[in-house]
Amino acid sequence: MNAPLPTHVLPTFQRRPVPVAMHDALKARFGERCSAALAVREQHGRDESPFDAPPPELVVFCESTDEVAFVVQQADLYAVPVIPFGVGSSLEGHLLAVQGGVSIDLSRMQAIVSLQPEDLTVTVQAGVTRTQLNNEIRHTGLFFPIDPGADASLGGMAATRASGTNAVRYGTMRENVLGLTVVTPQGEVIHTGTRARKSSAGYDLTRLMVGSEGTLGVMTEITLKLYPLPEAISAATCTFPSVDAAVRTTIQVIQMGVPIARCELLDANAVRAVNKHDKLGLAEAPMLLMEFHGSEASVAEQAATVQEIAAEHGGQGFEWATTPEARTRLWTARHHAYFAALQMKPGCRCVTTDTCVPISRLAECINASVAEVDASGLPYFIVGHVGDGNFHLGYLIDPALPAEGELAERLNLQLVQRALAMDGTCTGEHGVGLHKMGFLVEEAGAGAVAMMRSVKQALDPKNIMNPGKIFST
Amino acid sequence: MNAPLPTHVLPTFQRRPVPVAMHDALKARFGERCSAALAVREQHGRDESPFDAPPPELVVFCESTDEVAFVVQQADLYAVPVIPFGVGSSLEGHLLAVQGGVSIDLSRMQAIVSLQPEDLTVTVQAGVTRTQLNNEIRHTGLFFPIDPGADASLGGMAATRASGTNAVRYGTMRENVLGLTVVTPQGEVIHTGTRARKSSAGYDLTRLMVGSEGTLGVMTEITLKLYPLPEAISAATCTFPSVDAAVRTTIQVIQMGVPIARCELLDANAVRAVNKHDKLGLAEAPMLLMEFHGSEASVAEQAATVQEIAAEHGGQGFEWATTPEARTRLWTARHHAYFAALQMKPGCRCVTTDTCVPISRLAECINASVAEVDASGLPYFIVGHVGDGNFHLGYLIDPALPAEGELAERLNLQLVQRALAMDGTCTGEHGVGLHKMGFLVEEAGAGAVAMMRSVKQALDPKNIMNPGKIFST
Repeated sequence: MNAPLPTHVLPTFQRRPVPVAMHDALKARFGERCSAALAVREQHGRDESPFDAPPPELVVFCESTDEVAFVVQQADLYAVPVIPFGVGSSLEGHLLAVQGGVSIDLSRMQAIVSLQPEDLTVTVQAGVTRTQLNNEIRHTGLFFPIDPGADASLGGMAATRASGTNAVRYGTMRENVLGLTVVTPQGEVIHTGTRARKSSAGYDLTRLMVGSEGTLGVMTEITLKLYPLPEAISAATCTFPSVDAAVRTTIQVIQMGVPIARCELLDANAVRAVNKHDKLGLAEAPMLLMEFHGSEASVAEQAATVQEIAAEHGGQGFEWATTPEARTRLWTARHHAYFAALQMKPGCRCVTTDTCVPISRLAECINASVAEVDASGLPYFIVGHVGDGNFHLGYLIDPALPAEGELAERLNLQLVQRALAMDGTCTGEHGVGLHKMGFLVEEAGAGAVAMMRSVKQALDPKNIMNPGKIFST
Repeated sequence: MNAPLPTHVLPTFQRRPVPVAMHDALKARFGERCSAALAVREQHGRDESPFDAPPPELVVFCESTDEVAFVVQQADLYAVPVIPFGVGSSLEGHLLAVQGGVSIDLSRMQAIVSLQPEDLTVTVQAGVTRTQLNNEIRHTGLFFPIDPGADASLGGMAATRASGTNAVRYGTMRENVLGLTVVTPQGEVIHTGTRARKSSAGYDLTRLMVGSEGTLGVMTEITLKLYPLPEAISAATCTFPSVDAAVRTTIQVIQMGVPIARCELLDANAVRAVNKHDKLGLAEAPMLLMEFHGSEASVAEQAATVQEIAAEHGGQGFEWATTPEARTRLWTARHHAYFAALQMKPGCRCVTTDTCVPISRLAECINASVAEVDASGLPYFIVGHVGDGNFHLGYLIDPALPAEGELAERLNLQLVQRALAMDGTCTGEHGVGLHKMGFLVEEAGAGAVAMMRSVKQALDPKNIMNPGKIFST
C-alpha cells in the first residue's frame, strides 16, 4: 500500500500570478464584479474541508456563459489558474486556490433556462441550488431527487458527481445529467448531450465532465432528468440494538430488490447531535431513516417488507412520518447532521470519510472501522447512504492539535484500504479534491490514472483548470 | 445543415499492411488461432450494416486479456489497425476493416469471471452474450436486463452503449456497467471502476470507454449490475388504430411515471413480418408490446393504469401473456422483427435509423417520417423502444439498385435533421460507426467533436484502435 498519509499541511505549490494586463481586462469587463478585496478572496479560498491555503488573487462574479468564456479566454492567454465556485460546500478542498489565480463565482447564475415538464427535463444555470430548483418546479408535479444534504449548486454537484440520500433509487448526478454547456480550457463554448434520454453519439463527454471537479472545463448550464412526484411518500425511523443490525437490515432490503427511495444510517452519536441541534426526541441509538415512494399500495407493501426484515434484526419503534411537515422535520434534521455534529465539540473541524463498498461487505467494513475509531478515543459520528454501500465517518478534530488531524487521517487511511480490499472506492460522492490524490492511484492503478492525466493534458495543456486537484502534480 | 449525404460507396481509406515481422510474431504466439484464410477474414470483415469493405488482413482468436494485450502491443509497435469483434451484429459498419489490419475475435472469451449474487454484480469476459449470461445466472434469482434484440456480446454492447427493450426501466449499458478491464492502445492492461455502486474517484473512464466503439481500447472484461427477477412479470399486446395513437399512449404512460419495464412499438409492417416468420396470429395493426415487472399488486396496478390510457387512444384487444412460455414467444417474435422484415423482400439489405427524441415530440417525429417514407414507395417497417423516445425505421433496399440506397439515406437524413431540431440524437443505441460521422458533427457541434478527437489523439496517437469510425478522418 503506497498511498502517502495525507497531511493537513498542503504541499507548497508554485503560485501563478495574475498579470496586470489580465487584471485590467477583467476590471474593464466586470467592474465591481471583479474583486480583489481580501474578505471576498478569503470567502472564495476555503470550503468545508479541513485544509487551508492562501486565497485566490481575484474573484469574478459571472452572470452568463459568455462572461465565463471571457474569463477563461484571459486565463488561457496568460496561463493563469481558474477555479469554479458555487456555494462553497465542498468537503475535499476543491475550491482552494493552491496555485493562485481567479475564482469564478457562478452563484449569480441562478436562472431556470428552460423547463419541459412534458419531457421530464429542465435546463438550469450552474448556480441554481437543488432547493431552488425544487421550489421552482413544484407547480409541475415533478421533482429533482439528487440530494447531497448541503444545499449545493447543481454545478458543484455535477462537478463532484454528487449523490446523497435518494441515490439508492434515483441514481447519482452521473445518471441524471443529460447534457451540459461547458466552457473549455480554451474559452470556447460547447454543448454535450441532448435532451434525448439515451444516446450512442460518440464519446460520452457529459459523463467525462461530470465528476471532473472543474479540471476539464467550467460547466455553466446543466440539463437534468426530472421525476413525477410519487403518488404516496412515507418516511419512517427505526432504531436498532447496534450499527451492525441496522446495516444487516439494509443489506437484506437491497438484496431483495425493495425499491426503497432513501435508506440512511445515523449512529447514536449522530442522533444525539441532531436531537440537540434540532430539538428532537429521537431514541439515541443506531437508526435507519427510510423513505418509500410509489402508489399507496406499493408504499404500503414496501414498508411491510422492510418492517419484517428490520424486526428480524431487532429493529424497534418503527415510527412513521406521512405528513409533509413530519417528513421535512426528519430530513431537515438528517441534513443538519454534519453541522450538528461539529457543534458537539466547539471549535473543531471535521475530517470526513466517503468510502463505498459492495453491499454484502458493508457491515464488515463499518464494524471494523467503528472498532478502530472507538479504540482511538477520537470523537466521531457516522451517517451513511447505506442502501448504496456508502457511509461517512466524521472525525472531529481540534485544529490546534496536529496529532488529532494525523490520527484522523490514519483512521481514514485504514478505512480506505479496507474498502479498496473489498473492491470498493475511496470516494462515493465527495470527489478526490486535495484529499484523496494518493488514494486515487491506489484505487485505480497507475495505468488508469495515467490515462486520466493524458485526457487532462490533451484538453488543458496549460493546466489552468482548477490545477492541483485530482492529480498530485 | 451541413451533414453530407452518406453513401454506400465508402471513401477509399489508406490501408495499412501487417508487416511480415508482426504476422510472424502473431503466428508464433497463436498458431492456428491466427488466420489469414479468406473465409475467416470475410466473416470478420462485415456486419449487419449495408456497407462493404475489403476484409481485415488477419484474424486472431484471443482467449485472454493477456493475449489481447499481446496483439495490441504488436499493433502499437507496427502502427497497424486492430478491430475488436464480438458476434458481428453491429448495424453501423463498426467491424469493417476500412484501413486493413487485424480483427481481434473475442468470441472465445466466454467465461463468467466472478459472480457475486449477494452484491448484485457479475464480471464477465467480453465475448459472453446476453443470453449466455442470463442462462448462467438464472439459479441466483437475478438477471441482466439490457436486451438489444440481437444476442450480442456484452463487449459489443458496451462498445456501442447498447440498450434495447428494457432500457425504459433499467437504463442502458451506460448505467449498468460498473467497471471494465481495458487493453489500452499501447497494449497495457488497466481497470476502470470498482464493484461499488457509485464513485467520485477521478474521471469516469468507464463511461468514456462505454460507447467508444473500439476506438480507445479493447474491453476484455466487464463488471455489470444485476437485478432480482421480479416477483411478477406480465406482458401484454394492444393494437391501435394508428401508429400515432400507440405513441400517444406511450407518451402519457411515461409522463405519468408508470414504471413500465418494456414498451415496444411495432407498426403493421413489422407485425406482418413477425406473423409470417414466427407463425403468429397477431392483428396486423400498429401494436404496443409491453411488460410490467414488480410485485403481484404493483404489476396489476401498472397494467390497469396503462389499459385505461390505451383505451382513451382507441387501444383494443389487450391480450395478456403471463406464463413464461407465452412471454418468451412474444419477445422472441419481437427479436426476430429485423430478420423477419428482411425476408419480406428477398435479397434486400436494410438501412436502419436510430433517432431518439424527447418523449413529448415522439408522435410528431414518427408521423412526419412515416408520411415521407409512405410517399417514397420504399418498403419499410418500424420497431421502437418508444418508452425512451427511440425508434427504428428499417428501409428495405435492393443492393443492386443504388437509387434505393440513396433514397433510404435521404429519408434517414430528413429524419435525423428532424430529430436534432427536436433536441434529440441521431443514434439512441446503435452508435456512429461508419454511417453517422456527418450526423455526429451536426448533432454535437464542431467544438464538442474536436474535444472527442483530442481525447482520441491523446490516448491513441497512432490511430490504431478501430480507425475510421466515429470520426471521418
